[in-house]
Amino acid sequence: MGIVVQNIDRVDLGLVDRLGGFGVATVHEAQGRKGLLAPFMRPIYDGARIAGNAVTVSIPPADNWMIHVAIEQCREGDILVVAPTSDSHAGYFGDLLATSLMSRGVRGLVIEGGVRDIADLKAMGFPVWSKYIHAQGTVKETLGSVNVPIVCAGAHIEPGDVIVADDDGVCVVRASEAETVAQKSADREANEAQKRSRFEAGELGLDVYDMRERLKEKGLKYL
Amino acid sequence: MGIVVQNIDRVDLGLVDRLGGFGVATVHEAQGRKGLLAPFMRPIYDGARIAGNAVTVSIPPADNWMIHVAIEQCREGDILVVAPTSDSHAGYFGDLLATSLMSRGVRGLVIEGGVRDIADLKAMGFPVWSKYIHAQGTVKETLGSVNVPIVCAGAHIEPGDVIVADDDGVCVVRASEAETVAQKSADREANEAQKRSRFEAGELGLDVYDMRERLKEKGLKYL
Amino acid sequence: MGIVVQNIDRVDLGLVDRLGGFGVATVHEAQGRKGLLAPFMRPIYDGARIAGNAVTVSIPPADNWMIHVAIEQCREGDILVVAPTSDSHAGYFGDLLATSLMSRGVRGLVIEGGVRDIADLKAMGFPVWSKYIHAQGTVKETLGSVNVPIVCAGAHIEPGDVIVADDDGVCVVRASEAETVAQKSADREANEAQKRSRFEAGELGLDVYDMRERLKEKGLKYL
Amino acid sequence: MGIVVQNIDRVDLGLVDRLGGFGVATVHEAQGRKGLLAPFMRPIYDGARIAGNAVTVSIPPADNWMIHVAIEQCREGDILVVAPTSDSHAGYFGDLLATSLMSRGVRGLVIEGGVRDIADLKAMGFPVWSKYIHAQGTVKETLGSVNVPIVCAGAHIEPGDVIVADDDGVCVVRASEAETVAQKSADREANEAQKRSRFEAGELGLDVYDMRERLKEKGLKYL
Amino acid sequence: MGIVVQNIDRVDLGLVDRLGGFGVATVHEAQGRKGLLAPFMRPIYDGARIAGNAVTVSIPPADNWMIHVAIEQCREGDILVVAPTSDSHAGYFGDLLATSLMSRGVRGLVIEGGVRDIADLKAMGFPVWSKYIHAQGTVKETLGSVNVPIVCAGAHIEPGDVIVADDDGVCVVRASEAETVAQKSADREANEAQKRSRFEAGELGLDVYDMRERLKEKGLKYL
Amino acid sequence: MGIVVQNIDRVDLGLVDRLGGFGVATVHEAQGRKGLLAPFMRPIYDGARIAGNAVTVSIPPADNWMIHVAIEQCREGDILVVAPTSDSHAGYFGDLLATSLMSRGVRGLVIEGGVRDIADLKAMGFPVWSKYIHAQGTVKETLGSVNVPIVCAGAHIEPGDVIVADDDGVCVVRASEAETVAQKSADREANEAQKRSRFEAGELGLDVYDMRERLKEKGLKYL
Repeated sequence: MGIVVQNIDRVDLGLVDRLGGFGVATVHEAQGRKGLLAPFMRPIYDGARIAGNAVTVSIPPADNWMIHVAIEQCREGDILVVAPTSDSHAGYFGDLLATSLMSRGVRGLVIEGGVRDIADLKAMGFPVWSKYIHAQGTVKETLGSVNVPIVCAGAHIEPGDVIVADDDGVCVVRASEAETVAQKSADREANEAQKRSRFEAGELGLDVYDMRERLKEKGLKYL
Repeated sequence: MGIVVQNIDRVDLGLVDRLGGFGVATVHEAQGRKGLLAPFMRPIYDGARIAGNAVTVSIPPADNWMIHVAIEQCREGDILVVAPTSDSHAGYFGDLLATSLMSRGVRGLVIEGGVRDIADLKAMGFPVWSKYIHAQGTVKETLGSVNVPIVCAGAHIEPGDVIVADDDGVCVVRASEAETVAQKSADREANEAQKRSRFEAGELGLDVYDMRERLKEKGLKYL
Repeated sequence: MGIVVQNIDRVDLGLVDRLGGFGVATVHEAQGRKGLLAPFMRPIYDGARIAGNAVTVSIPPADNWMIHVAIEQCREGDILVVAPTSDSHAGYFGDLLATSLMSRGVRGLVIEGGVRDIADLKAMGFPVWSKYIHAQGTVKETLGSVNVPIVCAGAHIEPGDVIVADDDGVCVVRASEAETVAQKSADREANEAQKRSRFEAGELGLDVYDMRERLKEKGLKYL
Repeated sequence: MGIVVQNIDRVDLGLVDRLGGFGVATVHEAQGRKGLLAPFMRPIYDGARIAGNAVTVSIPPADNWMIHVAIEQCREGDILVVAPTSDSHAGYFGDLLATSLMSRGVRGLVIEGGVRDIADLKAMGFPVWSKYIHAQGTVKETLGSVNVPIVCAGAHIEPGDVIVADDDGVCVVRASEAETVAQKSADREANEAQKRSRFEAGELGLDVYDMRERLKEKGLKYL
Repeated sequence: MGIVVQNIDRVDLGLVDRLGGFGVATVHEAQGRKGLLAPFMRPIYDGARIAGNAVTVSIPPADNWMIHVAIEQCREGDILVVAPTSDSHAGYFGDLLATSLMSRGVRGLVIEGGVRDIADLKAMGFPVWSKYIHAQGTVKETLGSVNVPIVCAGAHIEPGDVIVADDDGVCVVRASEAETVAQKSADREANEAQKRSRFEAGELGLDVYDMRERLKEKGLKYL
Repeated sequence: MGIVVQNIDRVDLGLVDRLGGFGVATVHEAQGRKGLLAPFMRPIYDGARIAGNAVTVSIPPADNWMIHVAIEQCREGDILVVAPTSDSHAGYFGDLLATSLMSRGVRGLVIEGGVRDIADLKAMGFPVWSKYIHAQGTVKETLGSVNVPIVCAGAHIEPGDVIVADDDGVCVVRASEAETVAQKSADREANEAQKRSRFEAGELGLDVYDMRERLKEKGLKYL
């Protein structure tokens, strides 16, 4: 505790943006069904889809001091990812902090805790994925750390990992795997486009995926 | 397990649509306050109101194979109703399966599990009532059954029962009671319209429902 | 139980409206970080912000009789605040009761229980903050009390207290403190406006709030 | 609602007791992994294992009147199974009702609601599996039904079905399948006894169940 | 915040002990079914039954400083009642604080938060009713208040109120009503003893409480 | 997925046992208040306290195949730590698997999922900390991995880390920090012993920890 790592490796924003374009479900599948944060992480408003480099914050319960420290470490294209050291629904974050982050080009916030000023954040277009919405004020008394590995909503996140977030939730992509995952996501998307037209035309998944034989072997009975 | 019942009796869509017109709260009351699914079943977007014949699916946790099997059993005016055999927030369902269902005229999905591709489903106008929103991929390994009686979100549902769903949640109407319930719903709605004008005019429920005497008998005291 | 207090002191609506203008987060902070209801109290639709004088109802689980009794005690500028004596997700309240309340100038409902007719309430523009959305019907059998002190969603509320509610949740302000809290809220808002421009200009909270020295004393290390 | 079915078919107590001897996990597996109630149904004290014929009660939230009605329908070897029509943690049941049930030879209670007098029930040796422990008193105002099909904690239960309950939770066995399930449970238990000695001797499941080849085919890699 | 009220009125321990003898369910009923804390408040070990005068603590989330302040205000026969200002599962309390409280004759702890050193507390015989069990350490940075009115687990508690706690949960009795409630509890207990013998003798509640006529009027049908 | 790491570094059992002797709360504090698993991880019976080297398993929801694979990798003094890739209350583990683990000297199981055969596991003296108790059977269809880093109940765990578990919950100690943490735990315990005698003698924490001055500075007021 009490450490701020200042220089972290980030993924090139071109690559980050490619990942963002695919969205959470595709990226999650493309990287072998890993990296999802828990489903209690919900967007405060619908329709946002972002990707960015993770600046991580390990923070005490009900104390938002380290968010101020973390902002200085943020730059264009980052997403702030905050995990309390124990569950807390305090309102760690509101429109003033969002103003500060937006002035630095930060794209959004992912926090396993509470946020407030929801209406303002929506009006400003600053997207947040959080566990709670709660106005409860926090203190500024205890240190945490910035840009250390954290567990946020059940997912292990390293500083500089790519975060993808949309209406389906939040997914983390290891920086080292970002290029491969983007490639596989593109393949998956192409493949899905093809499937989609067949489904639109009324073909069944049973035939498109050639499932009938295997279902029969397993013993499926039609009455 | 491993059974697909192919021919089920369905309720005439004219009657189904009458029930859909009344909405969940009215239908639930009209049939004697029964048939509601648990309140954790929430629509993925606001404003949808549908009714349809239930095609039921009993499905293993985190395995969506049987949804493909079930789609072949669906037809115009159906609603797919899916219940995992144990609680699961896996993302069983997304935009491709929705495309397939829409091509068959299916009106929506009710699932005591997770869904994904929320933004796409909303854009497509395919309504879903689910317990979770989660992108977690599923496997295709284990059989379940289609068109058998299931318990979904605490409600017993038979294939061919009528499902009504709107912003208030989901309600099931036994096929055999659909006509009676539609009749009683109409009566209730007429009655409510009348009440509504009296309330708009400033009359009190205490008088409209003639409650003052009984409250007094029970011992209510005004200070 | 079984008591209706008819004459309660209310806060002047001018003052109430000033509090409403500030919103939940500001009012909560201005009064020393107290008064919030639990975060499970969520609005049934986005974007409403109201303030009003509390008419309180202590009500049995799954029995909404006393809401009818309470309506008679409501007047222009009130907010109905309902707390079941034990947790209940029954649907205590729907569009007819809302019609009745609107005809009396009541501004909204806060209920630690369930509501229904969500789509209608949204169309009518009658805002509700509730713990549950559920269509489950209630009975009218057992007395409760109106305008007695209650605990609603973890907050102690006296009849005539000011309720402020918006997308962040719900906050109660003691009637006796309303003037002071409004004053402090105004100060806070002015102060925040100033801070906002500094943040927009790219200044950091570390400097705006002069935190660097104290962080150093606590032992924060930059790597 | 408002119906009491007086004559229900019960399973012979010899067969019921055989099922009870196997316990929940074995019976659940033996009948094809079905019949479990949700895991929130916990015993109020450890170490009880019972089986009995279900006398079912559909009951309003926070109203225990129908339990009194149901007791008259109970006899030696029964288990009372109670499901509120909507979620309720009221304390429906305590030591007096247990005294009454014990005098009729009833073996226990399964209730998707609250119980109280826990210390007394433990001292009396009357086992209960419940969703909640709560002292909240109930009313006696609204009818429910006795010996109708119910959904309790997610499981469909018919009057006269066999209930098996132990520290693992609660399982229902259809009356019509009780004999077959008992037979399969015995087979399973014999098979497990044999396995147990092999495991005690240090053999691995990988070999006992002959899994190595299939794991290899699926692509498992040892590093 | 930041207030310690040093002189509070306490209820005579003779009266407190009479209330403790009746237990939570009886006292709750005797005072008109009020005063229960939420059912998530569970004892850390079975079998304790205590009563005492409440010393109340309003405490910040994850900060246990004020417990030290409160201990000085405790005396023989007290129960410490702690409520965080927002939900927190931090481990506020362990065996050292219990040692300190026991040395002053304090009878137990009621905390809407976390405790730790469970095994030690059980060995020492110091009972605790808590919302969580968690070892998470707390800080000592922010003031709260001692002996002010608080809301703990949904119940309003004044300093000097009587707390009764046993395996059923926790109940508060207003100091001013303690004598009356003790009297009514004694009446209730006498009445229950009489009922118990009738139930043991096999009489039915239907007859003991004379319910048959009213059930018939409500329309109960026996098939 | 689909990887088994066979050779992992383990911490010397002498050191592991020293850590186990201190228990969860002390070890957690000694290592700077980190390493705790979430409080929903509860022991299936009271009174167990263990420590061991982590053999980690990443496992699909409701599929326990990899536990069989993992057992072969276990040896004397290990603790099996299992995390499903998405939340699952299936009953992954019962008495047969425990028999197999005991024959290899494994000390216990930590699983963010369900277990069954609770009564047997207690009788055998095989301790388990789990999120759920549920008898629901699992399948053996999909690969996971053994001895890879996992997130279990919110904590990042590496194979070979030391796990400490008792009635307070579960804590992980990095292998590389085990010696230091043991040392600091011993210091802490010595320090606490000294404090305990002072508290027993009636001294107050306010004096033992010298808090009065700082409380005064913060503005604490005694009335």
